[in-house]
Amino acid sequence: MPEGDLKATPITQLVRNPGRADYDRDSVNQIIDATPLCHVSYIIDGRPYVTPTLQWREGDTIYWHGSSASRFLRQIVDKEVCMAITHFDGFVLARSSFHHSINYRSIMLFGQATKIEDDDKNALLDSFVETLIPGRLKTLRQMTDQEAKATTVFSMAIDEGSAKVRTGPPVDDDEDYALPIWAGVLPISQILHDPIPDPKNQAGLEIPQHIRDFKLG
Amino acid sequence: MPEGDLKATPITQLVRNPGRADYDRDSVNQIIDATPLCHVSYIIDGRPYVTPTLQWREGDTIYWHGSSASRFLRQIVDKEVCMAITHFDGFVLARSSFHHSINYRSIMLFGQATKIEDDDKNALLDSFVETLIPGRLKTLRQMTDQEAKATTVFSMAIDEGSAKVRTGPPVDDDEDYALPIWAGVLPISQILHDPIPDPKNQAGLEIPQHIRDFKLG
Repeated sequence: MPEGDLKATPITQLVRNPGRADYDRDSVNQIIDATPLCHVSYIIDGRPYVTPTLQWREGDTIYWHGSSASRFLRQIVDKEVCMAITHFDGFVLARSSFHHSINYRSIMLFGQATKIEDDDKNALLDSFVETLIPGRLKTLRQMTDQEAKATTVFSMAIDEGSAKVRTGPPVDDDEDYALPIWAGVLPISQILHDPIPDPKNQAGLEIPQHIRDFKLG
Repeated sequence: MPEGDLKATPITQLVRNPGRADYDRDSVNQIIDATPLCHVSYIIDGRPYVTPTLQWREGDTIYWHGSSASRFLRQIVDKEVCMAITHFDGFVLARSSFHHSINYRSIMLFGQATKIEDDDKNALLDSFVETLIPGRLKTLRQMTDQEAKATTVFSMAIDEGSAKVRTGPPVDDDEDYALPIWAGVLPISQILHDPIPDPKNQAGLEIPQHIRDFKLG
């Protein structure tokens, strides 16, 4: 059975190769930009850890952030990390257990966690909000220096890793196609529901245009 | 800004404590059972790796699988791993950048990757299919010994880790609630779309009841 793990066709090998085709990099960027959620893994005291966090991309650099108080984050400065970004697009139902799978788009990136210095941090954090929710930044109370200090931002060059994508119907053994077994795909996607205003909003505040315009991915 | 990383309220600490409340374990199980997608991290040659794969739970044990040909999987036998299961439930939009966050449910588990022996594997793989898509197994072409051999299954006891959940509206600084800034939540969920039959299905095959009944989570 379960070929269900993520081992399907590599579409891109982002090896340290400046000559790679633009098309490949564009595909990778689309997968990265389609969700802020990522999983970062690192080693502390010889043990592996993986934590979900939020990432954003600017050009060929990926950023993620966390609380400066986090003991994890303090220990990964300049250390090697691996980041995964994964979209689960559907169940693939084959005629045998073995050929069951999922459709997905996934990126795995390797690099060193470079800590951003304080001078560069405020602009980056502004850019994080604006990347995630375009139009929102200018509506907000401005960030204080204390808030910036409480936040650690890491960057990593997007130059080593791989992208894998599986799409389409199941691929069964030739002789199994003759069997009267229903096969196909159950597509999955993330959707956004109607905004829920904070009960503590000031009276009469309308849902702003940047929220009405917001789209996932 | 970004309190956007996943550092909100720990609801459960699954430390090695057999006396933990059942309620806690039930909450943890619900988070695990709501998606098969997980991210497993491990160390190979001193470098951290994280890969997405599929998991399923039976009682207090979690299982995941992959191709026996995978060089990763061969190297993690009996090694320490960390597994994360994460649900992204919405953007939390506060009045300051700093208090922006996301709503989520997440589990982090630690343990050793125990490789399942061949004798136990076939039954487990059947159970995997039946856990993921109840009712499907009995409709399928039976698994061959060769297919079972081509699949590696790992297990890990669910006894060390933590669960974190964030729900509800933003939490802003007291004085910021007076500002005329729209705050609230943009809820996100995964949905299932209509099944897409394989174009190679035998003519006249109806979508079976177990597919019509299938629900996410």
